Amino acid sequence: MTRTRVHNFSISLDGFATGEPQSAEAPFGHAGQRLHEWMIATRFGASVVSGDGSGGSTGVDHALAEQHSVDIGAEIMGAHKFGPPGWQDDPDWRGWWGPEPPFRTPTFVLTHRPRPPVEMAGGTTFHFLEASPREALTVAQEAADGLDVRIGGGPTVLRDFLAAGLVDHLHLVQVPLVLGRGVRLWDGLEGVEAGYDVEAVSSRRGVTHLIFTRAPGGSVA
Amino acid sequence: MTRTRVHNFSISLDGFATGEPQSAEAPFGHAGQRLHEWMIATRFGASVVSGDGSGGSTGVDHALAEQHSVDIGAEIMGAHKFGPPGWQDDPDWRGWWGPEPPFRTPTFVLTHRPRPPVEMAGGTTFHFLEASPREALTVAQEAADGLDVRIGGGPTVLRDFLAAGLVDHLHLVQVPLVLGRGVRLWDGLEGVEAGYDVEAVSSRRGVTHLIFTRAPGGSVA
Repeated sequence: MTRTRVHNFSISLDGFATGEPQSAEAPFGHAGQRLHEWMIATRFGASVVSGDGSGGSTGVDHALAEQHSVDIGAEIMGAHKFGPPGWQDDPDWRGWWGPEPPFRTPTFVLTHRPRPPVEMAGGTTFHFLEASPREALTVAQEAADGLDVRIGGGPTVLRDFLAAGLVDHLHLVQVPLVLGRGVRLWDGLEGVEAGYDVEAVSSRRGVTHLIFTRAPGGSVA
Repeated sequence: MTRTRVHNFSISLDGFATGEPQSAEAPFGHAGQRLHEWMIATRFGASVVSGDGSGGSTGVDHALAEQHSVDIGAEIMGAHKFGPPGWQDDPDWRGWWGPEPPFRTPTFVLTHRPRPPVEMAGGTTFHFLEASPREALTVAQEAADGLDVRIGGGPTVLRDFLAAGLVDHLHLVQVPLVLGRGVRLWDGLEGVEAGYDVEAVSSRRGVTHLIFTRAPGGSVA
């Protein structure tokens, strides 16, 4: 049985997954890199950013971060993750990640304005899809060919998948800052913890990893 | 130098310190006791609830909970903590805590409708005060006679003290549930972590203790 997973999804103490306003210069708005510094400091983060994995920490932050890539056969992301506001008007936009994005699988971008697929170096192909969470998951699961599907965010898309009861494994990373504004993860998700086991562990860096795993026999929806 | 401290202040993952609606039957609204079960399960909690400290856990949850009472000479609380909506109309209301409240110091209740002080058994005297956070703190510090002052909440009052830069030590306990509605702690506190060292530790029970201590030379306001 394949699972639907979320990894390295960083939020502030007040639950914001991004600041505001989002732009080409500031993908996370006034949050800057502050939500993701913990990951950039890991060996996993170093390998994603610079392509070589020789730097970075190798403790609990790294171990959890690296799960991001294990046994994943496809990703689903929202339009807000793929590009800054207005990217749909730019036919040449290929995402934030350069010629070799770190996904290395079929990657489904949810958008109301689909376009033809784009094949990138390193195994990533971007597909553009107008679909409900459940429909998108069916398509991605087929593409994943027996491996798991990762929900890549942003917060609006993750919220939709959580509300639909489609997430089996949720790894959040709470960073000790109060952003005050941006896009919240938790809105509309009252009681979402039901049906999950929740594990919490804080690292030396001061972030807290929250890991929700579907309880045996647990139902979320 | 005396400090202004907050202890055992429980919040949900989405930052709510109480549910809704608050009433005489349900002081925390739909949250019930869920935000405080971790504390009730400790030896400290057992001693507060039943008056005898023979039951309850004695690990990290207990050790941190018990700091609540150490070197405290006065408490400041908000009107919403002292009683259900409308308590000001009941001249006989003496708080939720029975004849011997667990505060055992002068306790200042912030209200727009002050009344004469009420002396309870066990060392608690309730004083009723219409004052700004800074004014109330000055009065409470005098009463504390060289010991620290605890800000007892609720969330609205704590937020006011944090916004005014008056809190030196803040112990929050994040409980892994999504309440969805109620009163949030974090609103209006963007950047409040500046000037604090933040320590995070999760206990076996799955709650995460977040301890903000004023950094050496740190300024909050």
